[in-house]
Amino acid sequence: MGGDHGPSVVVPGLALDVEQWTARGVRFLLHGDAARLEIELARHPAVRSLCEVRHTDLVISGDEKPAQAMRRGKGSSLWNAVEAIRDGQAQAAVSSGNTGAMMAISKLILRMVVTELERPAIAASWPTSRGFTTVLDVGANVDCDAERLVDFAIMGEAFHRAVYGAERPSVGLLNVGTEDQKGREDVREAHKLLTGGGLSLNYKGFVEGGDIGKGVVDVVVTDGFTGNVALKTAEGVARFVSSELRAALTSSLISTIGAFIAQGALRKLRHRLEPPDGAPFLGLNGIVVKSHGGTDAKGFANAVRVAADLAQSEFTSEIRRNLEQLTAALNEKGPEGDAAVEQKA
Amino acid sequence: MGGDHGPSVVVPGLALDVEQWTARGVRFLLHGDAARLEIELARHPAVRSLCEVRHTDLVISGDEKPAQAMRRGKGSSLWNAVEAIRDGQAQAAVSSGNTGAMMAISKLILRMVVTELERPAIAASWPTSRGFTTVLDVGANVDCDAERLVDFAIMGEAFHRAVYGAERPSVGLLNVGTEDQKGREDVREAHKLLTGGGLSLNYKGFVEGGDIGKGVVDVVVTDGFTGNVALKTAEGVARFVSSELRAALTSSLISTIGAFIAQGALRKLRHRLEPPDGAPFLGLNGIVVKSHGGTDAKGFANAVRVAADLAQSEFTSEIRRNLEQLTAALNEKGPEGDAAVEQKA
Repeated sequence: MGGDHGPSVVVPGLALDVEQWTARGVRFLLHGDAARLEIELARHPAVRSLCEVRHTDLVISGDEKPAQAMRRGKGSSLWNAVEAIRDGQAQAAVSSGNTGAMMAISKLILRMVVTELERPAIAASWPTSRGFTTVLDVGANVDCDAERLVDFAIMGEAFHRAVYGAERPSVGLLNVGTEDQKGREDVREAHKLLTGGGLSLNYKGFVEGGDIGKGVVDVVVTDGFTGNVALKTAEGVARFVSSELRAALTSSLISTIGAFIAQGALRKLRHRLEPPDGAPFLGLNGIVVKSHGGTDAKGFANAVRVAADLAQSEFTSEIRRNLEQLTAALNEKGPEGDAAVEQKA
Repeated sequence: MGGDHGPSVVVPGLALDVEQWTARGVRFLLHGDAARLEIELARHPAVRSLCEVRHTDLVISGDEKPAQAMRRGKGSSLWNAVEAIRDGQAQAAVSSGNTGAMMAISKLILRMVVTELERPAIAASWPTSRGFTTVLDVGANVDCDAERLVDFAIMGEAFHRAVYGAERPSVGLLNVGTEDQKGREDVREAHKLLTGGGLSLNYKGFVEGGDIGKGVVDVVVTDGFTGNVALKTAEGVARFVSSELRAALTSSLISTIGAFIAQGALRKLRHRLEPPDGAPFLGLNGIVVKSHGGTDAKGFANAVRVAADLAQSEFTSEIRRNLEQLTAALNEKGPEGDAAVEQKA
């Protein structure tokens, strides 16, 4: 029911790739207003046979505060979708509903696998000249110590492999320079853990802001404050360049003619710069994928594909294994991992 | 002597605006190899009459480490340019030389007016749909507490007024959201100081990454880590979009024809997106402006204009006045400003 368009996007979204879902054995529980869902499903009989509708009247609106959503959200479509994971009835949940409510409810029901994280981390898929780079956390974990950054590396790497098929995704740590002594203490500390922590990661060291768009590494790790600023700044620049391009190309008759002739190429460019829909909430005991609030059928279909890729891969067990290795490595350095590493520094 | 091209860019750069310098009563001390400088000056007699050449053989190269530059740099062209400020012979220094060396030497000779700052802050001029937004620190102060962020607000505001002529530049604090409770502790603390600190600033509250390119405020304040990542990310996105645009417009004969017709508009767009040259080192007892290492005459001319604007305005006294107000406001809250403010939080 979530997002700006609810079932009128969700069901057509599922219809787009119905052969894929059938081939992969993917089935869907649709939580929400049964009458509205059935109207949409009647238009897409091939989807109907893959779905089970779970009726509920309760919907969390887009502007509800997370605290309120947690209080009155039990039994809502969002709540039921996440609860179905906990109860083993579903392997993943996808929604384009209220992000804050989705985070709070997911954390409440599924609990964090990384208990030190205040909230699930969000990974963004960033368009680059080589495809997509996974950047995390672009969400709300604004205070991250070194170990949280290593957690992000572990989760981002597993996500990138599951969704983009890279066998050994390369991982970089975002910093203001590439020399070892550069940057904040927490970042340099994370660099040491990633270099010497005995993790099965293809870690490449520090990367800078300009490296993200070049696709220098597959996964860029940063705290939620820097990641959020970087992502929003990048989206702002892309919007600014596009609007300036439009202004430039309509500034005279002659350039307007040029733009008209080149319009197919310009349209292709616009698609090329759009980040794909489907951002995972990472660090939970379960797979939850956020689709844009204003998404269309194609966008929602991609978010569903991300969820299915994660659910049908080794994603969850890979994260668990690497997190255990990290804990073991930290314990080896002394009874209090943090303190011991700091002394070593 | 600094930068990739030395006197062959510096002297033609001065020649570009020679009427302006004459009208404004600006004169130049040129530090460096007298023979090379005189060859260039002979080609620009109008510039010659505004200049005094100060010979030195010693030049700091672009790849020297700051520590080395400080040890062996005394008497170099860069050193002498900064020393001339301390000795009252010049009101500002401009160089396109080694940034790290320039920072270290400036700090050593001029000392910081904000003694708690590890290094001078760097302000970037960010192209927006409304002109330019000043963003700082984009440099190397990676650890900033709340008071340092307020220092940046004070310095950035004075810079923006002096260089872009806005009477009361608006100031925003970069955060991951605009509600009071969002973001890191240091950012929320700075927000409180800026709101209640009795400063003469047109403070507008929190802004997000996407607001920078919209020109929502004239001055965006952030720590050197976030600012550096945001700036490099933005430059990366702009480069990526440009290269994708080029690829799209040459992908077929028909779009190539369109691009050819529209080429004037596309060239104008490229200029529009270029940040102007001339970034001030802020927080020093004196005006030092960094020009790009690879700058051309036009870029260097703009850096000189920035330096002249700062030197011929109330820039320095405005900063001093606001810093004193900040200190007074912090002292009012208790003998230990920091602690008192924290208790209030």
